[in-house]
Amino acid sequence: MKRESLLYASSDFSADMLYFAKAFVPDAFFAFTFKGKKCALVHPLEIGRLRAEADFDECFDASEISKKYFTRTDADTAAALFRYLGVSCFKVSADFPSLQLERLRAGGIDVEVLSEPLFASREVKTPDEIRNIKKANAVAAACYKALSEILAESKISGAKLMWRGKPLTSQIAKYELEKIALSMNAEIKRTILACADQACDPHCEGYGFIKPNSLIVVDIFPRLKDSGYYGDMTRTFLKGSPNSAQERLVKTVLAAQKIAIKGVKAGCVASSVHGGVCDFFESKGYFTEFKNGAWDGFFHGTGHGVGLDIHEAPRLGLADNILKENSVVTVEPGLYYRGLGGCRIEDCVLVCKDGAKKLSKYNYDWVIA
Amino acid sequence: MKRESLLYASSDFSADMLYFAKAFVPDAFFAFTFKGKKCALVHPLEIGRLRAEADFDECFDASEISKKYFTRTDADTAAALFRYLGVSCFKVSADFPSLQLERLRAGGIDVEVLSEPLFASREVKTPDEIRNIKKANAVAAACYKALSEILAESKISGAKLMWRGKPLTSQIAKYELEKIALSMNAEIKRTILACADQACDPHCEGYGFIKPNSLIVVDIFPRLKDSGYYGDMTRTFLKGSPNSAQERLVKTVLAAQKIAIKGVKAGCVASSVHGGVCDFFESKGYFTEFKNGAWDGFFHGTGHGVGLDIHEAPRLGLADNILKENSVVTVEPGLYYRGLGGCRIEDCVLVCKDGAKKLSKYNYDWVIA
Repeated sequence: MKRESLLYASSDFSADMLYFAKAFVPDAFFAFTFKGKKCALVHPLEIGRLRAEADFDECFDASEISKKYFTRTDADTAAALFRYLGVSCFKVSADFPSLQLERLRAGGIDVEVLSEPLFASREVKTPDEIRNIKKANAVAAACYKALSEILAESKISGAKLMWRGKPLTSQIAKYELEKIALSMNAEIKRTILACADQACDPHCEGYGFIKPNSLIVVDIFPRLKDSGYYGDMTRTFLKGSPNSAQERLVKTVLAAQKIAIKGVKAGCVASSVHGGVCDFFESKGYFTEFKNGAWDGFFHGTGHGVGLDIHEAPRLGLADNILKENSVVTVEPGLYYRGLGGCRIEDCVLVCKDGAKKLSKYNYDWVIA
Repeated sequence: MKRESLLYASSDFSADMLYFAKAFVPDAFFAFTFKGKKCALVHPLEIGRLRAEADFDECFDASEISKKYFTRTDADTAAALFRYLGVSCFKVSADFPSLQLERLRAGGIDVEVLSEPLFASREVKTPDEIRNIKKANAVAAACYKALSEILAESKISGAKLMWRGKPLTSQIAKYELEKIALSMNAEIKRTILACADQACDPHCEGYGFIKPNSLIVVDIFPRLKDSGYYGDMTRTFLKGSPNSAQERLVKTVLAAQKIAIKGVKAGCVASSVHGGVCDFFESKGYFTEFKNGAWDGFFHGTGHGVGLDIHEAPRLGLADNILKENSVVTVEPGLYYRGLGGCRIEDCVLVCKDGAKKLSKYNYDWVIA
C-alpha cells in the first residue's frame, strides 16, 4: 500500500516544508501528496497567497472543512479531509510534531514515522538548486575578501591587531561580515571565526582579540533570504608570519582537500573519500587521539550535504553511503592541535559522473602580511 | 504520579529548550527535569561547553551511557539513562519530534504529549526577561527613528518617493532597518513595511514603491542575538498630507490602543480587553466584514504574549484567559479597509497588579511632511 507524504510545519523552520511548498509560510500547516498532486490545507488568510506563490496543485480551505465537519483542531480538520478524499495512509518525517501524530491517529489516520528523510529527492539537486548554492557561496567568498582586507589593514601591536583605531576582535570582524551578507540579501549566523586554540574546540564560535601569527579558522555558511539555500565554506588565515609547524599544517590540509575532491564522483563510497583523508593525514604524521579530555587531530567528517538545510544528506564520513550524481557536498578536512591551533579548508562540490565540480570560488591565500 | 518534563530539540529552534538550557545549542539533544534538577544528555563534544555555559545541574555523557548499554540511537540512550535513574514518566510539548516519541515508548518510557505549554512559567516574566524584551523593543524604536528620517529626507515625485537619487521601495527601507538591528546585535526578519492596500493583507510583508499620501504599516519584531528575546512594535506612517479619512482612521486606532492598555491589568479577562476594542471601533462606525473574498475592519486579536517566541502565551483575543501579573503582551489594535489602507499601532506592555506598563518607547507621530 502506497503511503502519501504528510507534513505539518512552517516553512520558516522546516526545510522539508520549504522544499515542498517552495514558499515561506510563517505558521505551521498541513501539506501532503495525494495521487501525484501536491496539496495544502490552509486557513483563509493564507489561501490566496499560497495559491498565487506556492507550488501546490490544490489548496483546501481549512475553515470550510472545519465548519462542515464540526472539527476544532487542525489535525481533526485534516483527518476529516483525508476521510473525504479516501486517503488514510501517510508517512511523516522524524521531526513531525507529536501532538499532530497522536491526534491524526486518534482520528483513524494511519501514520508511519520515518527515520530516513521524507523526500529522498532532496539529495539530488536540480540546476536551480545548484545555482542557489553557488550564489550562497559567493556571499561567503565576498566575506573572505572583506576579511582579508581587514587583516591586511590591521597593524600588529603586541599580542593584538589594531584595526581602525581599536583592537580587532572576532565579534568586530563578524559584524563586518554580517553587513556584507545582508547587503547580498543573505544572512550569516553562528559564523566561526576562531583564533589559535579556540579553533580546536569544534563548538567554539570564537570571541575576543584576534592574535597575530596565529591560525584563524573562518567557517561561513550564508543562507539566501529569498530561496533559503545555504552555502558553506571555510578558510584559514594568519596575520603576520607563520612558523614552520603552522605552514606544514596548512599545506597538509590543503593537500588533503585536493585528494578528497579528486576522490569524489558519482557512485563512489563516501567512507572511501573520508578514509583517504584520514590515511593521508596519518602518512604525514598527523595522528588523531583523545588527550586530556578532548580530541586532537582530525575528529569530524570530511563533509556533508548542503541545500535547504546546512547539514543534510548525503554524509561524507565513516558511513558506506554511495554518492549520487548531482548531490552537493562539502569537502572540509581539518587538523587541530592544542598549542598549535587549527586549520580547516572547505568548499562545496557538485558530485558529477566523472568527478567533482567546485561550487565555491575563492583563493587559498592564507598568510596576510 | 508526577511526570517529569522532557525535551529533545536544538535551542536554536526551540524556545522551550532555550528557556530551559539558557544557552544556544545548535544540535538537538535530550534535556529533562529529575527530582527538581535540570539535566541534559549530551555528546562529549558539547559537554564541556554546556557544563560551563548552560543552566543544567547535571550533564550526562551520552557516549559513556551508549557504550555501557550498547545503545545506538539518542532515544535508546535516553531510555537506558532513565531506567538507570529509575524515572519512567515524562511529559513533552506538542512539537516533540515523533520519531523520538515512538522510540522512547518502544523503550518502555511513558511519554504524555501535552497540548498546553510544557513550561507554564514562561507566561510570567522575570525582571531579567523584562529587561531583555525592553532592549529588543529599543531596537524597533531605533528603526522607527531611522525610517522617519528616511521618509523626511525623501522627496515626493509623482506616485513615488525619491530617496538618495532612487525611488524608495519597501525592500530598500527594510534593508536600512536590518542594518540598524544588526548594529544593535539583533536581527529583524519578516518585517512588514506595507503601503496602502498591501497593509490590508495580514500576510503581505510589503514590496515595491512606497507611495506618498498613503498609510504605511510598519511592524518590526527584533530578536536579540545574545539572549533570544523578542520585542514587537508597530507604527503607521504617512509621507505627505493625509486626507480626512486617513486622519480619522489613525486617530481611532490610537484611541483604541489607549483604551486597550487601560483595560490590561493582572486578573482581567483577555476577551474583555479585546471586546472593548471591537466595541469601540463599532461605536465609531468601523465595522468588520468579509467582503469580496477578504476581510475589512479589525480581524485579528488585540495582542499576544512575547518572550523567547514572538507569539506565546497569553493570548489577548476572543478567549477568556485571565492575564497574570508580570506577563508581557502586545496591544495592537488595527483597522484595514481596501481602498483606504490600514493602520496598526502596537506596543508591548507588562501586566501589573493595577494596570499595564509600556515596555516600548516611541512616539506616535505619523505624518511626515
